[in-house]
Amino acid sequence: MKLPKSVVTEEVQELVMVAPDLKISSLLKVVPPEGSNDNGEGGGGEELFVPPLNFAMVDNGIFRSGFPDTSNFPFLQTLGLRSIIYLCPEPYPEANMEFLKSNRIQLFQFGIEGCKEPFVNIPEDTIREALKVLVDVKNHPVLIHCKRGKHRTGCLVGCFRKLQRWCLSSVFDEYQRFAAAKARVSDQRFMEKFDVSNLKHLSLPSLVQIGKHLAKFVFISIGL
Amino acid sequence: MKLPKSVVTEEVQELVMVAPDLKISSLLKVVPPEGSNDNGEGGGGEELFVPPLNFAMVDNGIFRSGFPDTSNFPFLQTLGLRSIIYLCPEPYPEANMEFLKSNRIQLFQFGIEGCKEPFVNIPEDTIREALKVLVDVKNHPVLIHCKRGKHRTGCLVGCFRKLQRWCLSSVFDEYQRFAAAKARVSDQRFMEKFDVSNLKHLSLPSLVQIGKHLAKFVFISIGL
Repeated sequence: MKLPKSVVTEEVQELVMVAPDLKISSLLKVVPPEGSNDNGEGGGGEELFVPPLNFAMVDNGIFRSGFPDTSNFPFLQTLGLRSIIYLCPEPYPEANMEFLKSNRIQLFQFGIEGCKEPFVNIPEDTIREALKVLVDVKNHPVLIHCKRGKHRTGCLVGCFRKLQRWCLSSVFDEYQRFAAAKARVSDQRFMEKFDVSNLKHLSLPSLVQIGKHLAKFVFISIGL
Repeated sequence: MKLPKSVVTEEVQELVMVAPDLKISSLLKVVPPEGSNDNGEGGGGEELFVPPLNFAMVDNGIFRSGFPDTSNFPFLQTLGLRSIIYLCPEPYPEANMEFLKSNRIQLFQFGIEGCKEPFVNIPEDTIREALKVLVDVKNHPVLIHCKRGKHRTGCLVGCFRKLQRWCLSSVFDEYQRFAAAKARVSDQRFMEKFDVSNLKHLSLPSLVQIGKHLAKFVFISIGL
């Protein structure tokens, strides 16, 4: 039996009612659209998803990747994205703009030049502005991407980890996992120097919001 | 003002009430325990978290890493883990057992030998059993780990990605990101051959449960 489009069970409707901003998208079984990408792999002629290059989950409602192309769109739809943080100065391609429009995804563009060492100049203010968008749960689920998901994306995620109070060696470990042979000392120096002390007011309290009705400061001290 | 231990705001209590199994732990602001690890980095004498080697978020409520040691315990506490899937045959160290006990974390041990090529023999049945534990949201949040978070953990995560219908090149891309220079063709061959067709009944329907009251099959067809 072919399932009708846009059929949501009562259980999910109930869930959406009680926690409207809850990111359940990646847990849902999604039937890909007709005519979407099919690699012909896997059993039973089922269609496979193609995540973008260097795709990964950063935290609840936060994803990272390289530049997505049309083959990645069915996968991205499963994430139920509300926004994209795009870190390159080049205009967004027409096909990607169409994808955003038809899925009501907001684009936040922060044009950072993709410089090569030793001519590197990561604009701290731009990263700071991107970080504000990133930690605002009203924008979640959000995908951060640049061209290859290594340097610009790596720096933004690294600064986010500092906000989460990760030690620097773990921040670098994660950065290097994505940058691999292209890891830059200058990027790591940038992350090390990046001062989060005046951003702490917006970090975790806003991340703790799940549903706008919970949009308040929450401080928890767990009994350890 | 020093915050009392175990103080939970009304907002979080409400959230826990409406969605009892919701994984909000990593979103919460956690005040580390007195005497926990302090690296002395960062401003204002604030304590930093030390995630385990190769730590990453796999999906909602699922994490992966290398072997955690005592320096990682304060960080792991922020995840609010309900269980750990441990993929080595060696007994769990005393300190780690204590940590599990005091945090009420269940240990699922699947002893897979850490063989080196060409003497590799990943037991398919064991991975299959581990996968069943992994996709059961009653065990979430769950951390998968082996020794270095590269091979055994990489294979289990790769098989999970096949259940999520990721194409093989993306499965391998992720595997290689963690295994890096230690990536094994034999592991990738194992993942390629691993048949998920008779596991599909337990994959997404059980993942879609958020709260036991929603423990039913949910099929969604989104209008694209």
